Amino acid sequence: MNREDLVKKYNEYKKMNLHIDMTRGRPSKEQLDLSTPMFDVVSSNSDYTSEEGVDCRNYGCLTGLKECKDLFASILEVPADNIIIFGNSSLNIMYECLADAFLYGVCGSTPWSKLEKVKWLCPVPGYDRHFAICEHLGIEMINVPLNENGPDMDIVEELIKDPLVKGIWCVPKYSNPTGITYSSEVVNRFAKLKPASKDFRIYWDNAYPVHHLYKDKQDFLLELLSKAKKYHNEDIVYIFSSTSKISFPGGGIAALAASIKNLKDLENHLKYKTIGFDKINQLRHARFFKNIDGIKKQMAKHAEILRPKFELIEDILENEAKGLATWTKPNGGYFISLFVNNKAKEIIERCKECGVILTEAGCAYPYHSDPNNSHIRLAPSCLSIDELKQAMSIVLIAINIEMNC
Amino acid sequence: MNREDLVKKYNEYKKMNLHIDMTRGRPSKEQLDLSTPMFDVVSSNSDYTSEEGVDCRNYGCLTGLKECKDLFASILEVPADNIIIFGNSSLNIMYECLADAFLYGVCGSTPWSKLEKVKWLCPVPGYDRHFAICEHLGIEMINVPLNENGPDMDIVEELIKDPLVKGIWCVPKYSNPTGITYSSEVVNRFAKLKPASKDFRIYWDNAYPVHHLYKDKQDFLLELLSKAKKYHNEDIVYIFSSTSKISFPGGGIAALAASIKNLKDLENHLKYKTIGFDKINQLRHARFFKNIDGIKKQMAKHAEILRPKFELIEDILENEAKGLATWTKPNGGYFISLFVNNKAKEIIERCKECGVILTEAGCAYPYHSDPNNSHIRLAPSCLSIDELKQAMSIVLIAINIEMNC
Repeated sequence: MNREDLVKKYNEYKKMNLHIDMTRGRPSKEQLDLSTPMFDVVSSNSDYTSEEGVDCRNYGCLTGLKECKDLFASILEVPADNIIIFGNSSLNIMYECLADAFLYGVCGSTPWSKLEKVKWLCPVPGYDRHFAICEHLGIEMINVPLNENGPDMDIVEELIKDPLVKGIWCVPKYSNPTGITYSSEVVNRFAKLKPASKDFRIYWDNAYPVHHLYKDKQDFLLELLSKAKKYHNEDIVYIFSSTSKISFPGGGIAALAASIKNLKDLENHLKYKTIGFDKINQLRHARFFKNIDGIKKQMAKHAEILRPKFELIEDILENEAKGLATWTKPNGGYFISLFVNNKAKEIIERCKECGVILTEAGCAYPYHSDPNNSHIRLAPSCLSIDELKQAMSIVLIAINIEMNC
Repeated sequence: MNREDLVKKYNEYKKMNLHIDMTRGRPSKEQLDLSTPMFDVVSSNSDYTSEEGVDCRNYGCLTGLKECKDLFASILEVPADNIIIFGNSSLNIMYECLADAFLYGVCGSTPWSKLEKVKWLCPVPGYDRHFAICEHLGIEMINVPLNENGPDMDIVEELIKDPLVKGIWCVPKYSNPTGITYSSEVVNRFAKLKPASKDFRIYWDNAYPVHHLYKDKQDFLLELLSKAKKYHNEDIVYIFSSTSKISFPGGGIAALAASIKNLKDLENHLKYKTIGFDKINQLRHARFFKNIDGIKKQMAKHAEILRPKFELIEDILENEAKGLATWTKPNGGYFISLFVNNKAKEIIERCKECGVILTEAGCAYPYHSDPNNSHIRLAPSCLSIDELKQAMSIVLIAINIEMNC
């Protein structure tokens, strides 16, 4: 199609007055329906007593139910003793860890609010909400390239020599937004990391540990906490996870895994913040999923719904965007990264004019600043196949117009 | 009974190896049972759509469901627009407000972490967890006498001339632990308060707004936010509340009411902390209670269970402790305050030796320091009538031994 025809077609789409929101990794209604039987496992006729004899309807049990710790232990492949169950949001745990560090320091270090400056390593492209927290807290963010095996560790190892560098964001498996998984070599280098600052922490956001798209192509992530322990370095990492994309976003449960020393430090602040989290919802999750097999079965059902959406996008791109763009082909997670050299902003804007809302340009970079103006995050989960086809047609027209001229 | 006989009886109790925990205001199992039908209103067959069309199982709706705002609006007697629904804990909202003030300041003021010192007014006796938060954050606490009509406002009005004084804790209705309710005159003086510091806030912990024990004796609390608004002073107050003692402690929902300016300020931090709270549990609460009538009916049932426990304690004290102690006779809430001149610690210790665990001596005062060593908090809610009789026998023996010698 020549440019004139492309623009003509584009203008036709504009008139269609579409509203297709592809901005966030929201599960679809069908995915949410998978977990609604959970609502029935705690009813007015239930026993509300946890394995350890706690009445889940009352106060107490600050660090969470044993059965939920066991569940996350099997998901994250760490001992249950290294786990605290929090509320409904792992993002909130991350925020609280940072806020604690600013207010109280980390394991006895100087509170970061008393420091002249705090710096943070941000593998890019990365998760916009991670960067937003840093920006809000006034943390200076430093980009680190994220390659297909994980962050460039040569650069990480160099930058941590600066004692003002206090941490790094990582989404180590089915990374948001590129979908890559850190290689065992990269994880091993993280496990051995010796930053200049004693209160440096790896913020290991293991948001998609069991979120595979395929039965036969599943990424493997080396477990970091146990690996770090082998190097007597287990205090270096906080691991975050949740059931937001296993059960319900907002209605799930979230967990932190860390060394006993780190857990004690954080619990010493947590006990002032709340008397405890919602144990009834914890009970619901423990009884519904039971164990890792229950989780795996659930995730296979999610994959059945999600996989065709990813495959559709990949097929369309393969057939129609070759030479114009590059993209990632993740085996799990919620996102595909599309790279369009120096035209991301323009393409996103064109899509928007046709009613297809993509995540804001630059979102995957600190300060919303994509140095090459090349990254577009595609989030197919909440759209139907038909909507997705429509959205991708528009994305492709926009790409063709911008990349061909 | 002479001292010898008292000690003899006391030693008999010691041998009984009792374990009666009266430390906290935990609802009893019967009270928890009142709300379990709530679990059935959201089941696998439900519609999960909120009044405003939100699928409560998915992300979004940061400030909470409209129907829950309406519910708290009727409980707190403020407009729904002045409300944000948070997670499961009002204590956590209070903590977060303070943490925000330290990290970011209040409505643009200097972050408190940058100040040389922060001071706080603490009506005493008060709620131990309020004071614990202040102590943890390094806030200097200043005692203010709490009288039967509320805090001594002459003293409050004097102390707020110090610009380092940034706030005051208040449990204005059925106060923890004395059970008193602030008079309209006191509330009116709070509404007009003009502290030297612009970022001073009244932390108005309205934990027991509908928690009456009697049908015919109900305390009235003047609504502070609307009153302050009349004096163009509505930014002075944060109001906190929850359903912890309406539905489930830990499994309930919590709310903040404040001026639009304050809400915007807090929401500007909240949006970095989480994508949203558990809307499914919000939906459960809204559908189960429906409106203020549903709440009132529920609270009448709680009162039926709680009232005999309060009356029992008051009868026992009336019959057996006159002249030895004084105590409060609340019309609602969860606590009775018992005053034993200069012997609280000793009496609490004696009870503990018999297996009756009362809240720690000094708990109702900043730094655990009861200047007169006189206050004992009695929390009858979670005990059966029989346990309560046994516990009170021991309390009375301990009082008699200590006060008579």
